[in-house]
Amino acid sequence: MESKIIASLDLTDESKLVRMAEEIGQSVFAIKINWPTILSLGKGIIKRLSETSNIICDLKIADIPNTNRLIMEQIATQHPWGVIAHLFTGKDSMESIVKAAGDAKVIGVVAMSNPGASEYLNGNYGNLVEDAKSLGCYGIVAPGNDYNLLERISKMKGNLKIFSPGVGAQGGGYNKALLSGADYVIIGRSLYENPDPIGYIKSLERK
Amino acid sequence: MESKIIASLDLTDESKLVRMAEEIGQSVFAIKINWPTILSLGKGIIKRLSETSNIICDLKIADIPNTNRLIMEQIATQHPWGVIAHLFTGKDSMESIVKAAGDAKVIGVVAMSNPGASEYLNGNYGNLVEDAKSLGCYGIVAPGNDYNLLERISKMKGNLKIFSPGVGAQGGGYNKALLSGADYVIIGRSLYENPDPIGYIKSLERK
Repeated sequence: MESKIIASLDLTDESKLVRMAEEIGQSVFAIKINWPTILSLGKGIIKRLSETSNIICDLKIADIPNTNRLIMEQIATQHPWGVIAHLFTGKDSMESIVKAAGDAKVIGVVAMSNPGASEYLNGNYGNLVEDAKSLGCYGIVAPGNDYNLLERISKMKGNLKIFSPGVGAQGGGYNKALLSGADYVIIGRSLYENPDPIGYIKSLERK
Repeated sequence: MESKIIASLDLTDESKLVRMAEEIGQSVFAIKINWPTILSLGKGIIKRLSETSNIICDLKIADIPNTNRLIMEQIATQHPWGVIAHLFTGKDSMESIVKAAGDAKVIGVVAMSNPGASEYLNGNYGNLVEDAKSLGCYGIVAPGNDYNLLERISKMKGNLKIFSPGVGAQGGGYNKALLSGADYVIIGRSLYENPDPIGYIKSLERK
């Protein structure tokens, strides 16, 4: 069965990152990297890691349409499996990402997992989900540590896939997130800081 | 008199970028760069350009606190004059940026200049300005092409400095933005695509 785990590898040491990606890449659905890795190692690391797994660039892009396009065009040259961008900066901004994404799947943020996300962002999830559908996103990001919110989002997701962070170090549970509607569960520190990451992955999937 | 112009140089060709920065760096208040430049040239370009002007990294950082910290720590090693981050993802996310910023001034986005920004973001400007104050931001980003909104923000800004994009290619006027409350006006394509950028800067400041 295909794994539903996405490993978030926020590593900046190239040999450690590549070693970890080679170790777990085929045991997870995808590996997610973020700006800290790209800032340290350059965007070429995206293509390099693609040899080990599907790569998702979690860039939370949140700029005006022209800048979003310029960012996305450069990322697209490295052919990641997917890219994460914000929807709250408006439909024009996301439209620009989708147009420039090339073969990368676009995943829009409809709610986040940090406590502060409830202050402004998360209350807009309903409209943001509709925007993600109408703009041709492949999926959405919704918190894996807020099961009620995740369930509400899951009921309206249509064909969108739900990618849920906040599991592990941020408190969410793997099975509870899946039962609440997540299609993929993003696990970061609790996986890559684990002395036996493959054992950890298997223990999650056995439950 | 100190210039109130910030040149947004969205260039990815190193020699063209450095030549432009050397030409205009001392005639403007600062040079702003964004992810496309860093993706092309690496984060070392921040320090390199600092020899020519104050450098503002317009990264619109919009992630959870831990990731914001990891991004900001790497940027801080290059000692930019300032960095732009979102407030919309919550107070905890911005707090994390301010803590990790080192000697860089933190500028929070309270409203954006693209049409889509009115759908979700811009309606929150009142609370976002208060967050910027309470979290110790140096300044805020507010659109230079929406004079009414800029005036309303300017009345509540306290000690914050207002940085206004959207002037030039996006339709805003330099003088109107300053009269509406901008402290600094960000000019991009209409400046760096101008065959005589210094002449253009002088013509704006003469009016």
